[in-house]
Amino acid sequence: MSHRVTLKQVAAEAGVSYQTVSKVLNGEGTVAAETATRIWETAERLGYRPNVTARNLRKQSSRLIGYSWKPMAPDQVNPILDKFLTSVVEAAESAGYHLLLFPMRSGEMASNQYRELIVTGRVDAFILSSTNYDDPRIQLLNDLSFPFVAFGRANPEWDCPYVDVDGRAGTAMATKHLLEEGHQRIAVLTWPDNSRTGTARFNGYQQVMDEAGIAIDSEWIKRGEGHFDSGYQHTAQLLALPDDRRPTAIVAVDDQQAIGAVRAAQKAGILVGREFGITGFDDTPGVQLIDPPLTSVRQPIWEVGQRIVQLLTKILGGQTPEPHQFLLQPQLIVRQSSRRSG
Amino acid sequence: MSHRVTLKQVAAEAGVSYQTVSKVLNGEGTVAAETATRIWETAERLGYRPNVTARNLRKQSSRLIGYSWKPMAPDQVNPILDKFLTSVVEAAESAGYHLLLFPMRSGEMASNQYRELIVTGRVDAFILSSTNYDDPRIQLLNDLSFPFVAFGRANPEWDCPYVDVDGRAGTAMATKHLLEEGHQRIAVLTWPDNSRTGTARFNGYQQVMDEAGIAIDSEWIKRGEGHFDSGYQHTAQLLALPDDRRPTAIVAVDDQQAIGAVRAAQKAGILVGREFGITGFDDTPGVQLIDPPLTSVRQPIWEVGQRIVQLLTKILGGQTPEPHQFLLQPQLIVRQSSRRSG
Repeated sequence: MSHRVTLKQVAAEAGVSYQTVSKVLNGEGTVAAETATRIWETAERLGYRPNVTARNLRKQSSRLIGYSWKPMAPDQVNPILDKFLTSVVEAAESAGYHLLLFPMRSGEMASNQYRELIVTGRVDAFILSSTNYDDPRIQLLNDLSFPFVAFGRANPEWDCPYVDVDGRAGTAMATKHLLEEGHQRIAVLTWPDNSRTGTARFNGYQQVMDEAGIAIDSEWIKRGEGHFDSGYQHTAQLLALPDDRRPTAIVAVDDQQAIGAVRAAQKAGILVGREFGITGFDDTPGVQLIDPPLTSVRQPIWEVGQRIVQLLTKILGGQTPEPHQFLLQPQLIVRQSSRRSG
Repeated sequence: MSHRVTLKQVAAEAGVSYQTVSKVLNGEGTVAAETATRIWETAERLGYRPNVTARNLRKQSSRLIGYSWKPMAPDQVNPILDKFLTSVVEAAESAGYHLLLFPMRSGEMASNQYRELIVTGRVDAFILSSTNYDDPRIQLLNDLSFPFVAFGRANPEWDCPYVDVDGRAGTAMATKHLLEEGHQRIAVLTWPDNSRTGTARFNGYQQVMDEAGIAIDSEWIKRGEGHFDSGYQHTAQLLALPDDRRPTAIVAVDDQQAIGAVRAAQKAGILVGREFGITGFDDTPGVQLIDPPLTSVRQPIWEVGQRIVQLLTKILGGQTPEPHQFLLQPQLIVRQSSRRSG
């Protein structure tokens, strides 16, 4: 490859101004697609090579943001991956960055992976998801003062930049809605209590029940792994409670358990969305096609992605953005599964 | 950052051999996690920086593979994204590569995007998905002799490396299965005929019907965009046909249309999975939770990802792999929706 071809030569050959060539080849500003094509074709033909790797080396920057995610079990839908990645990749491109994907490992393997990507200068920053209490990735990145933004929260005393969705508010809306539909004995299908996200969602239910003056029967709290099967089995147990303790509605902290609950209730001959109310969480694509269509809490995933990249680019630009913690509000999408009458 | 710290110093300080340090810091071979941690920590403390950007510049390689995908409509599940990315990212990492994501554009915008990533040396190769006839991306990459592997096929006369799933075989299996269940009047919900993938899937249905000696009524062929609504509406039209032309089964080339068909038939009071058979395609996570559970064609997505990266790394290694076109066999997952009796 020749390094002698200059922007000026490309401009002369393509019959456009130096500024226009510079804009196109450096990815700055907007130029008509037709003109851009001519410039790229000319650059190719003349052998112009503004090697990004070389430019990044001078700037000591890779213009890459590292991201890794937790794959779902084969029979389960990832409710947010497509939309989240689309949002992040669009926003990153606008800011002159690309996303570098790497596989999610656990424990020490994960820390070494992050160390390797940092020490080798592979990425300029990270986006973390599936965060939890005592998250070792956050501890490591804080220790190294390496830029990152988390989708989700960890320990409240840690002052890290994050964008999260207010899960507490989400289940609070769902629980209030079921109360308004006339339910009193409302059970909850939640996650093991070491989950940061699960705890927030559980708290929304608990708070609204407390405010309504309804004592929560300890049998109404079921903790499972967020699968159809746990939702199904726990609902069967709930329905086997004596008449005066048996719930007439269920708030689930994820859609999979909610669908399990719908099927278990239907199996027991109960009309869901008429005499029994069920709500899910995530508004997973497809839950509108369940029979009856599932009421669920929708997270503003597109906005989460946009805000994360905004925050990250500010940090990478040397700013100390304030605020650097965003709690976005979810939305309750009411469908038939939670209604008292058709 | 200091460039003076050597591997030898890191080895001495960490109390391990030069070979072990080299393995860990260059990402080659396997070393116990505990040892790797000690080496990374030592490398950090001493300020050792084997800058990958610099190393890649010497090798004139970015060790990045570009990938872009077509986002789904908000209410639709992407049936393969999570599994496909997981497979590709795992395989790429083993081969010393990472995946660089960029947003999918159409037309000239897309070509310019590919040109930019190539000319700037940002990526070493591409993986393409959602390929179609006359795919401009394939034309561009062929013109530039730039390495890529496609997930999917394009024009038969183009000799490009691809890994695809045999869609024709998939719908052929589904159609045969419905014939074996005793159906004769079988309709098909397919895509517009300018879709390469849709044509392959449609052909499987047509071929099996021909072999069975059943004349396909032109009313049985419905073309839609692969959404619930088109499946629903076309099925309502099919059910309005006169008795002797009305189908008793439907093969859909995607799960969304199949679910639309299930609901339309149920709306008309027909027992799906008893008197009426329906099959989908993709085995989208969650279709096992539909009532009745949906019979569908499962694609070996994990294997597709692994094979694509294998092929690509051979090409990047300067080989001309033979074969360089792989057509993998799908699998029919039979559930209640296609059965004649419960």
